[in-house]
Amino acid sequence: MGLVVQKFGGTSVAGPERLKAVARRLVAAREQGHEVVGVLSAMGKATDDLIALAHEVSPEPAARELDMLLSVGERISCALAAMAVHDLGHRAISLTGSQAGIVTDAAHGSAKILEVRAERIHKALARGEIVLVAGFQGVSTQREVTTLGRGGSDATAVALAAAVGADVCEIYTDVEGVFTADPRLVPGARKLDAVSYEEMLELSASGAKVLMLRSVEFARNHGVRIHVRSAFSEAEGTWIVSQEELMEQPIISGIALDTSEAEATILAVPDRPGIAARVFRALADAGVNVDMIVQNVSAAGHTDISFTLPKADTARAEKILAPLADEIGAGGFAHDPDVAKISLVGAGMRTHPGVAADMFDALAEAGINIRIISTSPIRISCVVLAADAERAVQAVHERFRLHEPLVTAEG
Amino acid sequence: MGLVVQKFGGTSVAGPERLKAVARRLVAAREQGHEVVGVLSAMGKATDDLIALAHEVSPEPAARELDMLLSVGERISCALAAMAVHDLGHRAISLTGSQAGIVTDAAHGSAKILEVRAERIHKALARGEIVLVAGFQGVSTQREVTTLGRGGSDATAVALAAAVGADVCEIYTDVEGVFTADPRLVPGARKLDAVSYEEMLELSASGAKVLMLRSVEFARNHGVRIHVRSAFSEAEGTWIVSQEELMEQPIISGIALDTSEAEATILAVPDRPGIAARVFRALADAGVNVDMIVQNVSAAGHTDISFTLPKADTARAEKILAPLADEIGAGGFAHDPDVAKISLVGAGMRTHPGVAADMFDALAEAGINIRIISTSPIRISCVVLAADAERAVQAVHERFRLHEPLVTAEG
Repeated sequence: MGLVVQKFGGTSVAGPERLKAVARRLVAAREQGHEVVGVLSAMGKATDDLIALAHEVSPEPAARELDMLLSVGERISCALAAMAVHDLGHRAISLTGSQAGIVTDAAHGSAKILEVRAERIHKALARGEIVLVAGFQGVSTQREVTTLGRGGSDATAVALAAAVGADVCEIYTDVEGVFTADPRLVPGARKLDAVSYEEMLELSASGAKVLMLRSVEFARNHGVRIHVRSAFSEAEGTWIVSQEELMEQPIISGIALDTSEAEATILAVPDRPGIAARVFRALADAGVNVDMIVQNVSAAGHTDISFTLPKADTARAEKILAPLADEIGAGGFAHDPDVAKISLVGAGMRTHPGVAADMFDALAEAGINIRIISTSPIRISCVVLAADAERAVQAVHERFRLHEPLVTAEG
Repeated sequence: MGLVVQKFGGTSVAGPERLKAVARRLVAAREQGHEVVGVLSAMGKATDDLIALAHEVSPEPAARELDMLLSVGERISCALAAMAVHDLGHRAISLTGSQAGIVTDAAHGSAKILEVRAERIHKALARGEIVLVAGFQGVSTQREVTTLGRGGSDATAVALAAAVGADVCEIYTDVEGVFTADPRLVPGARKLDAVSYEEMLELSASGAKVLMLRSVEFARNHGVRIHVRSAFSEAEGTWIVSQEELMEQPIISGIALDTSEAEATILAVPDRPGIAARVFRALADAGVNVDMIVQNVSAAGHTDISFTLPKADTARAEKILAPLADEIGAGGFAHDPDVAKISLVGAGMRTHPGVAADMFDALAEAGINIRIISTSPIRISCVVLAADAERAVQAVHERFRLHEPLVTAEG
């Protein structure tokens, strides 16, 4: 007996039959005696269709109006799911983000949740109703409809779970959980039973697509236990919980691959204090999101500064850095979109030296050149050529025998 | 310089190009110096598609959830129209029924507007914005999304026009105005330049589809001047205004045809006080909407009571009246769906005797049998066989020479 938040993504609600399956899930939890809140995404490609429609009307739709438009998709899913729950003999009510009390800032298209005023949800739960909340949306402090941007429905689910004190936030998706690597790249990839918030943060930040960074961060900060699982089977998925809750502490949890970034280098930078600050201040002011930064040890008074950035920002960065390179007396600015970042994540790394060496060795043996390295206490990331990316993931997965049952730091 | 409410129906907003045309209309009024409020319906068949989707999920969707679902259609139209207005260099904002302050009762699916709290509209107008309001919807006093039922977007437009004190409420539609008869039945039917609220009430009540009765009633009660016109041309349409505003007073305004009703008769009813009351109380309690009622003069202590009712209610009426006929000692209950009601409407009738006689004569000459007659001071309605309906309309239109330029009571 407890309170469960169940979130269903676009694939899980794509069409009447799938919505009925969602209703059966919600009702099953209710019949086990739980209070149940469902958070739904828009059906299948509904949001994409609305965006396309907006662009047929206007080349650059205003963000406020785009939010008014896009917010309808999740409302449709929720109203239909409520009808399907009724047909199973249970009470249900659908709520818009606004009605559910999801209060956000006014950043249309990428709003942040400021607060959840859950009175209306609590009242409905007290009446014995299954509550269906439209994901991805809220209402701003100026009473405007807002949307939360990519991964917004997960953010809604986790924020609601925190606000109502849910025992678990179940994220139903089209994969079975979090894997040691993308199973499309590594056929032997193994599903993880559990992973800590910290590891999941590193995996999400490194390109794992199963959950967005913001939702994992929010869950960690508010102690929301997440269960990522398949909408199409009854199998247990992956639990994302605090480190203390984990029975076993694996050395390595998994490998993430990120192909969305480009590599950029400012060549032969004079080795004077303040140069790096100037470069990255200029990029930050232009809204360019720099990820990894490495600066080689200076040789003969000059050094190369390399970094990665979203491919989409490359042109903007070049516009800023080509003249700046001249100005600071550097040798020039170069960039390469054909790279990929492979990241090895595991909380057990902290206490197991040699993981980095093993990873580099595995890549070397596969004949793969490493271009940039960066590390955190529980992550090692290497930038390699995009053409080598798949082989790199396979080689590292193999080296750490991630297809085998869990190797723990303790055992 | 004034305030204009422009309402666009589903055909007028069906697709990106038509939405852009709507934006041009709104902007043209703004550039003439008016403050402009647009009320939009859902795009084309969007509402029908949503209803079909609901029925794919659930055989009998709950009214509250159906309202949540259906209310999205108008929001989509409004957000898209706002984008299109922006592209014409004007400011615009879309508002849901709730945001526009359309407060209704809690009758989901057929809510009545109780109040319009127009502060947000006034503020937007004061900022110079074209305000786009989602038609057909509101928010109940219990903060639930409601829809207004058939003709709901017209009701929204007229209620808003009254609340903001608009100079005119323009109803853009796919016909050019109000005609002396349905031009598909009578090729010579003539567009009316103007018609009084009272005449329009009778026409709408008698089956004219251009405007629903509720909107005309509201307009009359609040003195809202309506201009029904084509969304696809610049031509003047038909003004619906108070009798005092009309320069000319025609004898006949037009002919309406209603094929939605069936005829029912309770045969050989004993002529005792209280019998008719008992029959129609029973029907009213069952929610059957009886329209015309006639009772013949009693012969030999028995009389027939005939009435018309919506075809869809016939089965329900029979269930009540077949046993009741036995109980009161009547001869039985009979009904016939294959009838039509033809109504002749004109304020000038009041002062012109002989109109009814002319109408009956025209029908007789065409060999058409009249089954039931009922009249108001400005309307004469006859029920005829459905097979005769079209010829009946043509014969009466011809007899009163309605294809010719206006014949007025004064002139």
